[in-house]
Amino acid sequence: MQDSTDIVSYCADIAGRAKVASRQMVGLSTDIKNRWLLESAMRLENKASDLLVANKIDMAKSDTFGLTDAEKDRLRLTTDRVSQIAKGLRDVASLPDPIGEVLEGSIRPNGLEVRKVRVPLGVVFFIYESRPNVTADAAAIAIKSGNAIILRGGKEAANSSAAIIDILRGAAVDIGVPFDAVQLISMPDREVVGQLLKRSDCIDLVIPRGGDSLIRRVVSEASMPVLKHYDGNCHVYVDRYANLDMAIRIIENAKCQRMGVCNAMESLVVHASVAEQFLPRLVKELSKYLIQFRGDKRCIDIMPTATEATEQDWSQEYLGPVMSVRVVQSLEEAIEHINQYSSRHTEAIVTDRVDVAQKFTREIDSSAVMVNASTRFNDGSQLGMGAEIGISTDKFHARGPCGLKELTTYKYIVQGNGHVRS
Amino acid sequence: MQDSTDIVSYCADIAGRAKVASRQMVGLSTDIKNRWLLESAMRLENKASDLLVANKIDMAKSDTFGLTDAEKDRLRLTTDRVSQIAKGLRDVASLPDPIGEVLEGSIRPNGLEVRKVRVPLGVVFFIYESRPNVTADAAAIAIKSGNAIILRGGKEAANSSAAIIDILRGAAVDIGVPFDAVQLISMPDREVVGQLLKRSDCIDLVIPRGGDSLIRRVVSEASMPVLKHYDGNCHVYVDRYANLDMAIRIIENAKCQRMGVCNAMESLVVHASVAEQFLPRLVKELSKYLIQFRGDKRCIDIMPTATEATEQDWSQEYLGPVMSVRVVQSLEEAIEHINQYSSRHTEAIVTDRVDVAQKFTREIDSSAVMVNASTRFNDGSQLGMGAEIGISTDKFHARGPCGLKELTTYKYIVQGNGHVRS
Repeated sequence: MQDSTDIVSYCADIAGRAKVASRQMVGLSTDIKNRWLLESAMRLENKASDLLVANKIDMAKSDTFGLTDAEKDRLRLTTDRVSQIAKGLRDVASLPDPIGEVLEGSIRPNGLEVRKVRVPLGVVFFIYESRPNVTADAAAIAIKSGNAIILRGGKEAANSSAAIIDILRGAAVDIGVPFDAVQLISMPDREVVGQLLKRSDCIDLVIPRGGDSLIRRVVSEASMPVLKHYDGNCHVYVDRYANLDMAIRIIENAKCQRMGVCNAMESLVVHASVAEQFLPRLVKELSKYLIQFRGDKRCIDIMPTATEATEQDWSQEYLGPVMSVRVVQSLEEAIEHINQYSSRHTEAIVTDRVDVAQKFTREIDSSAVMVNASTRFNDGSQLGMGAEIGISTDKFHARGPCGLKELTTYKYIVQGNGHVRS
Repeated sequence: MQDSTDIVSYCADIAGRAKVASRQMVGLSTDIKNRWLLESAMRLENKASDLLVANKIDMAKSDTFGLTDAEKDRLRLTTDRVSQIAKGLRDVASLPDPIGEVLEGSIRPNGLEVRKVRVPLGVVFFIYESRPNVTADAAAIAIKSGNAIILRGGKEAANSSAAIIDILRGAAVDIGVPFDAVQLISMPDREVVGQLLKRSDCIDLVIPRGGDSLIRRVVSEASMPVLKHYDGNCHVYVDRYANLDMAIRIIENAKCQRMGVCNAMESLVVHASVAEQFLPRLVKELSKYLIQFRGDKRCIDIMPTATEATEQDWSQEYLGPVMSVRVVQSLEEAIEHINQYSSRHTEAIVTDRVDVAQKFTREIDSSAVMVNASTRFNDGSQLGMGAEIGISTDKFHARGPCGLKELTTYKYIVQGNGHVRS
């Protein structure tokens, strides 16, 4: 633990360096950014053994940090996983450069030439969980979109992340990307986050990824905008006109493929006219997943193994083998229920009717609305964005998966010839 | 004054009504929105005499509120001004509807159809100064972009604004726009704002327009995003390669056309190699405006009437006949000075050199960067956006003039045929 004077000056130094780097990055060409990504990828693979050594240190401490087996698995690096990380950087290199894109433009009646041009946000402060691959991904996305990034990773992956960042910064210096374009916080103190959240003079955006309590703390302390990544209480609505075979397949995929992720399904809404036929079949087909169903009264009448859902259940992101089930009398009631309880992340409808699908996609207020497809598709790579730094549950600035474009802003460049306003 | 229980329930009612209205507005057609705008315009003109009566009550109280002559002038309605307000609504009707625009779209390799579609933000809470025309403009922009709006105008214009809103709501009911799409706060208590700022469950965005202290209060209390409209400390840089005649014309327009607006020039930066020739000429040509110049040492050597600028002067938005003047040795020093002290609103360069203009427009981090044109052009109508609800000094979500598109977000609509993720 450091005393707080040390922490204040450490944070001032980090924030100031990031700001200087971000100004230098304004002129960085696509070519330089891509060469840095490719060079970093090559060095990560060439130095994989160094990374594995660093990772072993983290793994050895993982019991001390009380990591679960699943968490340990996500922390572990192997030669294959290092290659996956390198591939991630190469994928980002192959994406179009968002910077400099002319979003709109016109010549005004008086001859003024107006262009709205995409520019970097500046400095991004990213707080994230302990997976080493996220360290490399976040740095790649930030720099490709012209931003400097300050990384605050989980202490569980401190050695692995530091080894990755050393390689990325080494490549930066050799290729001509500012050394401080990527900085990793090395001080574990909680107060470091608090100090950096005060530096809106240097930091343009903070992205906290992790539990609800982390995000709430950041929102309450941050002096700059926060891109929030709250729960995914995702719904699947099985309409009266649903293909029930398809509904089973979609629910199995949405709920059971990976129960612990934010785009996994948590709540089922079923139209009453198919509930008696559908729900018992669902119970049977998903029996191997040992799912606990929590339903409303109409649901319990049909599914005797279901327990009664509390008000809390309707808003709950379980991230495990529990599912809430609501039986509705109409499409309108389904939409009303979902808009009331969802976290605006992802919802899906299964229906054969075009008019029903249209009403659902229009009226559901979530970042992604799926028709006859699994909620699991709300993901940057699945939607064609190539890479993501998170999935925003905000409506302001960016919504849904956040990739390169979501880390940019724009400015107006206006060219005149002595124009004055009359 | 109301007691606080009354205020809490009043605000809960307002916020809840706005939320309900915003959901109803999701399906509102362009045709209905435009018919409401045109009908409202017609009724405002037909009932101009009622508006003038209401305005007379406000004017009669204006001394009690301590309004300056300029403020009284902005508050005053005339038949002509009512026609201007009506014209503003017709202009908004003629703008393209932003809602439903497909921003991007693709068919993924697995056949999933992905569309990124522009949708309303939801409910906007707008706090503004006492000009009656702003009441109508804000309502028009909000509804055309599919949002419900809660208006909190200055108490000085309470009667004028209420009369305008009565007409707009009357037209809404008759045309089929939800009655509560526009609501005007009638309770003058300061606590009303505080209560509404807590309602992030109903309100998606707050836009405070007014003094610095209002914006800071809103930022510190708001639980939802705030679109900020801070100072405009706008710079004009006269380069060594400037056409000096053009520089004089641009500075005269930028500084003197309307001194009290946010896109007015406040700070002059001059390259040393033209300073001796340019500054005395500037003093002479602007003499009729009685401008007080506050400069650095090099400036004072050249302009004996200038006083020494303090550190505070470099960041100051004067909104009156004062100008800070800085002499620099290089383009780099000019950019450095501007990026350090500007409020990121609007900056201009006067230069004949393409390479200098390119470096300036790239490296200056402001919402609008003008080349050989007045800072006064940073304005929604001048840049071709048709109407604006403010000029954002934020980089997040929207930057510069905020019109229809800036009050929208988007969602992904994904169409499959039983697609599950592998």
